[in-house]
Parts: sequence; C-alpha cells; structure tokens
Amino acid sequence: MARDELRVVAIDGIGEIREGDVVADLVADAAARQNVPLADDDCLVVTQKIVSKAEHRIVPFDASDPDAKRRLVEQEAVRVLRRRGELLITETRHGFICANSGVDLSNVEEGTAALLPVDSDRSARRIRDRLAARYGVSVAVVISDTFGRPWRRGLTDVAIGVAGIAGVEDLRGHDDARGRELQATEVAIADEVASAAELVMGKSDGVPAAIVRGLHRDWFRDGSVHELVRPPAEDLFR
Amino acid sequence: MARDELRVVAIDGIGEIREGDVVADLVADAAARQNVPLADDDCLVVTQKIVSKAEHRIVPFDASDPDAKRRLVEQEAVRVLRRRGELLITETRHGFICANSGVDLSNVEEGTAALLPVDSDRSARRIRDRLAARYGVSVAVVISDTFGRPWRRGLTDVAIGVAGIAGVEDLRGHDDARGRELQATEVAIADEVASAAELVMGKSDGVPAAIVRGLHRDWFRDGSVHELVRPPAEDLFR
Repeated sequence: MARDELRVVAIDGIGEIREGDVVADLVADAAARQNVPLADDDCLVVTQKIVSKAEHRIVPFDASDPDAKRRLVEQEAVRVLRRRGELLITETRHGFICANSGVDLSNVEEGTAALLPVDSDRSARRIRDRLAARYGVSVAVVISDTFGRPWRRGLTDVAIGVAGIAGVEDLRGHDDARGRELQATEVAIADEVASAAELVMGKSDGVPAAIVRGLHRDWFRDGSVHELVRPPAEDLFR
Repeated sequence: MARDELRVVAIDGIGEIREGDVVADLVADAAARQNVPLADDDCLVVTQKIVSKAEHRIVPFDASDPDAKRRLVEQEAVRVLRRRGELLITETRHGFICANSGVDLSNVEEGTAALLPVDSDRSARRIRDRLAARYGVSVAVVISDTFGRPWRRGLTDVAIGVAGIAGVEDLRGHDDARGRELQATEVAIADEVASAAELVMGKSDGVPAAIVRGLHRDWFRDGSVHELVRPPAEDLFR
C-alpha cells in the first residue's frame, strides 16, 4: 500500500450486542473472520450504539408517553441551547452539543432508548487495552456518533471518544509548501476518521464498526475527545 | 475489493497550478503517472485552492495594510455573523458560513490572496465533464475547503462544490435493522467524502487532490452543494 493511501473497511457480522458483551473481542473476531484482522496502527471506529449497549446504557422508554423523550433528554443534558418542537439542542455532561443529548431510539429494542456512554474516552481506552492484551495489536480507537451541525444540512459522524489517536492535531506553525507560515491548521483528525468510517458503515444497515488503515504515524498518540470540545469562552455561537 | 471497502488515494505530483490551467487534465495525468488512473465511479476530491488558482480567483493583497484583509473579507461576504479581533465569521454568496469568507492567504504567492470559486458546483461540473470527454470516465467531483465549526475544536474539510454525487443523501423512512423507522439519517455524503480525502491530503503539504474509490453506487447522481446549505429559516443558530 502506498504511503498516502487509506483503506476503510466495514466490519460485518458482529451480530447483536448485549449488555456486558466485550466489544473488543466481538469486533476483532469479526474482522478476522472477514480476513482483515486488526493490525498495529489501524484505527478502529466503533459506533456509540454498540458501546452503549455493552455498557448498560440502555434505559426503559415509554414511547406512548408524550413527555418521556423530553424528560430523558433533559436528564442527560447540563444545558438546553435551543428548542424547536420535539427537537432539543443540548449540551451533554461530556461537553458535546447535539440533538436530544444523544439519546437514540433507533436500532434499539422497542420500549428502550440508548444513552451516550458515561465516559466515552474511557470506553475507547478499554477497547484499545483489551485489543493489546488479548490480540497483541496496538490499535487506536474512535467511538463515533452521528451529529447535526448549524448552517449545513445533513448529519456527519464525529468522534465522541478516542484512545491512542489525536483528537485534534495542531499543525500550526509548520511551513506551507511556499515557506510561509500556515494560517490555521488544527485538524479534527478523529472527527474526519469517524466521517470516513461512516461512508462504509452507512452503506448497509447494522454495520457498527470499521477499520481505517494507513493514517499518519504521527497522529497515533495519547489523545482525548476533550481536544474536540471547544471551551465556551472560545465559542462565538452559544 | 470488497463491497464495503473504500480506498482513499492522494494524488501527488500535480505541481504548481497557474491561471487558466485545466485542472481535470493535470489531476488525471498525475493519477495515471502514479498508477491509479481515474476510473468510473471514482469520486475525485480537489481542493478549493487549485480551483481558485486555475479560475483567476487570485487577487492582489497588501499584507502591510492592516485593513486590507478586513476589506477583502467584507467584499466577499453577504453578511457578517461575528467578529473577534481579526477573525470574521461571514456568510458568502454561496450561502457558506465560514471564517473570513473563505479568503485564504496560505499557499499562494506573496502579495496575493485566494478567493472561493464564484460558482463551485459549476467548477466541479466542468472538471467532471472534461474527464468524461477526454478520458472517457464517469467520475464524481467534490471541491473541498477547510472550515471551522461552532462547539467543536479543529477544522474539517467540507464540500463547497459537487458534481455527479449527492450533497446530502436522504435515508429517512428506510427501516433500520429492527424494522423501525430511522429517526434522522440525512447524511452529508459530500462533506464526509471531503473529510476522508483530507486525511490523505493532510499527510504532506501541497497535495491538492485525492481519489475516493468504492462509494455506494446509489450516491452517484446529479447533486449540488446547495443540498448542504441549511436555509436560514431552518437554522437555529444564526
């Protein structure tokens, strides 16, 4: 594979995740079965949904109660930024600003809802550590979720937890090709990785993981999703 | 290549772009030289910078005049949303909301600045049409630029022009894996493609194009970047 080439491979056949399942093992075994075993310097992208399922973040939800959703969303929020009809834009405990505090009613059992992992960096680290311990591979992990954004239509997948990879890679101060200083190149690596993975996971329903292979070596470091959360004082749009 | 796999390949060796250059030819020839000739159902991602250079969108810029940047940014804007120091968040004629109207001072000749293409869908279509006419391939085209966003730190590449591919693909109403209706799955395909490409282009300076190979066939259609621009009436954050 050329140096400047990326492969993004959907991991199929993981099956239904249940509370207490070890996500790392299920994903690694599924990848091996489809002849793309996880390797050093891979980045594994796993959707929030299966992490939440494995981590007991599925709660009862009565869809017939018109207030149930609002209550759940508010309970998961530290702040409500906007309301429009059923849609609430909220800030979660993690500092994420997203629709409905990330509470999700799709792809879960009838009568239940999926909440975001409590500490999604920790969830990512747990997967990374397990892959190292059991399979002997050094794999970065991004936990992804599907967020909207202001100004632009359409959802994109972003990182809500990372381990072993940069959230944001600061290239400021490097020279550009002409030797002038670059203006601003703090790149949201982990978000772009999540988006790339979504392009293969979104091709068919129920694919909750993908391998991104060929990322720049320099980006593999001790990262955190907090690098991706803009502090309120820096933010011009709250 | 497996069905659910994506390859993202940086196109190197395009060289410096000059006014009047035919971007399609330079990119196609460079791709062929590195043994990844453009093929049907590829999506070619090209950065705004080389399109602006080829399309005479380079203007004189006097860096020693403290007001020059502000004047240029305001001239390229239909509206200023926020100001903080030198940074202006503006709305462009295209409807994009971004820093400094997309005016860029990096990777251009000293004493000049690069403006966004006048009609970036048209720029993308021109590249797509030329590739069909001269090389006989049906290739989708995304013109990318690097934008910030509220709430999250780090820049990501997004689409500012598209041809032959969906801007947003509406999967609403499709059933999820459990047969329940999906809540909201309007995916910003073209933005995710731009982000995936940035992961290989950002690895080294001066790589202005990439091939994304293996996207879902259904996404290849007559698209427009206007699908990605959220109408002000829908927008909760202006």
